[in-house]
Amino acid sequence: MTLSRFSTDVYAHRLSAAAAAAGEAGLAGLVITPGYDLRYLVGSRAQTFERLTALVLPAQGEPTVVVPRLELAALKESAVPELGVTVRDWVDGEDPYRMVVDALGGQAVAVTDAMPALHLLPLTELLGVVPVLATDVLRRLRMIKDGAEIDALRKAGAAIDRVHARVPEFLVPGRTEADVAADIAEAIVAEGHSEVAFIIVGSGPNGADPHHECSDRELQAGDIVVVDIGGPYQPGYNSDCTRTYSIGEPDPEVARRYAVLQRAQQAAVDAVRPGVTAEQIDAAARDVLAAEGLAEAFVHRTGHGIGLSVHEEPYIVAGNDLPLEAGMAFSVEPGVYFPGQWGARIEDIVIVTADGAESVNNQPHELIVVPAR
Amino acid sequence: MTLSRFSTDVYAHRLSAAAAAAGEAGLAGLVITPGYDLRYLVGSRAQTFERLTALVLPAQGEPTVVVPRLELAALKESAVPELGVTVRDWVDGEDPYRMVVDALGGQAVAVTDAMPALHLLPLTELLGVVPVLATDVLRRLRMIKDGAEIDALRKAGAAIDRVHARVPEFLVPGRTEADVAADIAEAIVAEGHSEVAFIIVGSGPNGADPHHECSDRELQAGDIVVVDIGGPYQPGYNSDCTRTYSIGEPDPEVARRYAVLQRAQQAAVDAVRPGVTAEQIDAAARDVLAAEGLAEAFVHRTGHGIGLSVHEEPYIVAGNDLPLEAGMAFSVEPGVYFPGQWGARIEDIVIVTADGAESVNNQPHELIVVPAR
Repeated sequence: MTLSRFSTDVYAHRLSAAAAAAGEAGLAGLVITPGYDLRYLVGSRAQTFERLTALVLPAQGEPTVVVPRLELAALKESAVPELGVTVRDWVDGEDPYRMVVDALGGQAVAVTDAMPALHLLPLTELLGVVPVLATDVLRRLRMIKDGAEIDALRKAGAAIDRVHARVPEFLVPGRTEADVAADIAEAIVAEGHSEVAFIIVGSGPNGADPHHECSDRELQAGDIVVVDIGGPYQPGYNSDCTRTYSIGEPDPEVARRYAVLQRAQQAAVDAVRPGVTAEQIDAAARDVLAAEGLAEAFVHRTGHGIGLSVHEEPYIVAGNDLPLEAGMAFSVEPGVYFPGQWGARIEDIVIVTADGAESVNNQPHELIVVPAR
Repeated sequence: MTLSRFSTDVYAHRLSAAAAAAGEAGLAGLVITPGYDLRYLVGSRAQTFERLTALVLPAQGEPTVVVPRLELAALKESAVPELGVTVRDWVDGEDPYRMVVDALGGQAVAVTDAMPALHLLPLTELLGVVPVLATDVLRRLRMIKDGAEIDALRKAGAAIDRVHARVPEFLVPGRTEADVAADIAEAIVAEGHSEVAFIIVGSGPNGADPHHECSDRELQAGDIVVVDIGGPYQPGYNSDCTRTYSIGEPDPEVARRYAVLQRAQQAAVDAVRPGVTAEQIDAAARDVLAAEGLAEAFVHRTGHGIGLSVHEEPYIVAGNDLPLEAGMAFSVEPGVYFPGQWGARIEDIVIVTADGAESVNNQPHELIVVPAR
């Protein structure tokens, strides 16, 4: 059985670093309800809603977990028992918000972005001060992946590469996009993911909509097909990889434009290294496309960070002057879209290294021609 | 194909009623992000997170949906297009919170309990006033099911009854709780649910923990087994039904205590009618158990409301003096738990009628004896 979390020392380190960051931000502490931040900090996959579960992490002093007594068991698989964190369980009739405030020792609080209004509003009332988002405090920690996270992303990347290696056999004219998506869903799990996060099969004109998922459209000879797929791999780090396929040999103009896209994607990957900004990576791809008259065809940002969440910081987009640092992980996925006709996208997940980038996806970048049969 | 939502007039009526309720509460309006409230009001299953999607429902005037342009397509299957609601789409760089505030026409706002801090905090800053929870405004509307909802709950109840009818064949000594749960999961979908919401198989001592899910414990002759199962049925209303099984003939003391539990459950169902309070239903079950010395063995509330959400209002619990009204739907599920030994629970979903209760679950309530083989 694969582990559902990292070793306890990983979380001990993260808790210390998060508390220090809260202190530097002038906060009394953080309040983290279930979601990616809680999973990051203590390895808990709790998904409670109506009753409050919260990690209270004061800038000074010991962390506390406030948890409904009935849900104590859900903490067992997290690192909480081994971390020696204080656990304060509560039963219906007690006030868990009061427990949170007591464990904080101050009013200036940051809360996880996932905290629902159901809990945030009573907490705000008791604090007497509107909290801020913990995202700013946790951003750098969550963006810069440690060794265990990088290893997890590599394994997820290798797994989705194995799925893409099997995609050509699924792309048979007469089958629908939904048929192909069903095969891919099975392959995603068979290749080791714990579940499917998303599957885009955009054939012919559907490939021109970057947010198309799949439909009952039947594949036909001459289709260009965008396949963008991924899912979480134990202990929960996501894969995300796009390749574009051609059913039969492509039209020469399609091939020409695809070659420009391939150069754009490579230029963006080649530009990745510490100190370069996120928007410079976006520009590296965009400039290649613009030089060939394809600026208008690239309608979205170049990429997004990835980890426990499929979309997280850093976002590789114009206006983001964040300098890259070693350990950041994100997608590089420029695309070209021609409404009513076809689209193409090439996407790899890369990790910033000391002097460049390591791609966790290593399937060929070329337009992959499958038989029209 | 089954419908994923009700007809448009159902939602038109709900929007009018919700706007009127907001006005009566002295609010400028409601802001509803994806979740059960949004699904209730416009039939949308949108699940966006990082980019704001919100239904803005002013007490006076027309509703507006604020939605990222890239996610416009997700509205298509909801009632929004047919309702003629104004749709304001936005792209990265625009301020969707400003659009929400402009569509409201006032500062006193209630927000859905599911709204994440990510959106609630920027909205609060722009409003200059901390919102309140929309739960109070929507409570009565969501608690009192209309004809379409009651029909949906009946269908869900009949489907889970068919699953319980098949459970005896799964309960074979030597098989694990997890084996049984896998069979039940398949049966839940085969009998028409769109997915599994939860499966509890608590055998022997595991049955004494009301929140046990399932384990690798092998069933054995003499086990009492609690099976509590359910899931959503199109267009999304949930089933939830518990029956208790005995592998081989039960010990006479087990049979005696179970008979008391059965009387307690029946007493609570018999007490249901308009005007009786939620806590009186709870007491009806509890009193029967207490009279036989089993008060301490019943460690949880008697029930919870059900609909689009598995747990919603009304809660059937001591301290809730809410008078029942026709159309409310909730579980009646007393249990008895003997730590380290065994437990039992009987659960039906009932709907309050003009003069009593209709149960949507109709499998026998007796302890169901399966062969020890």
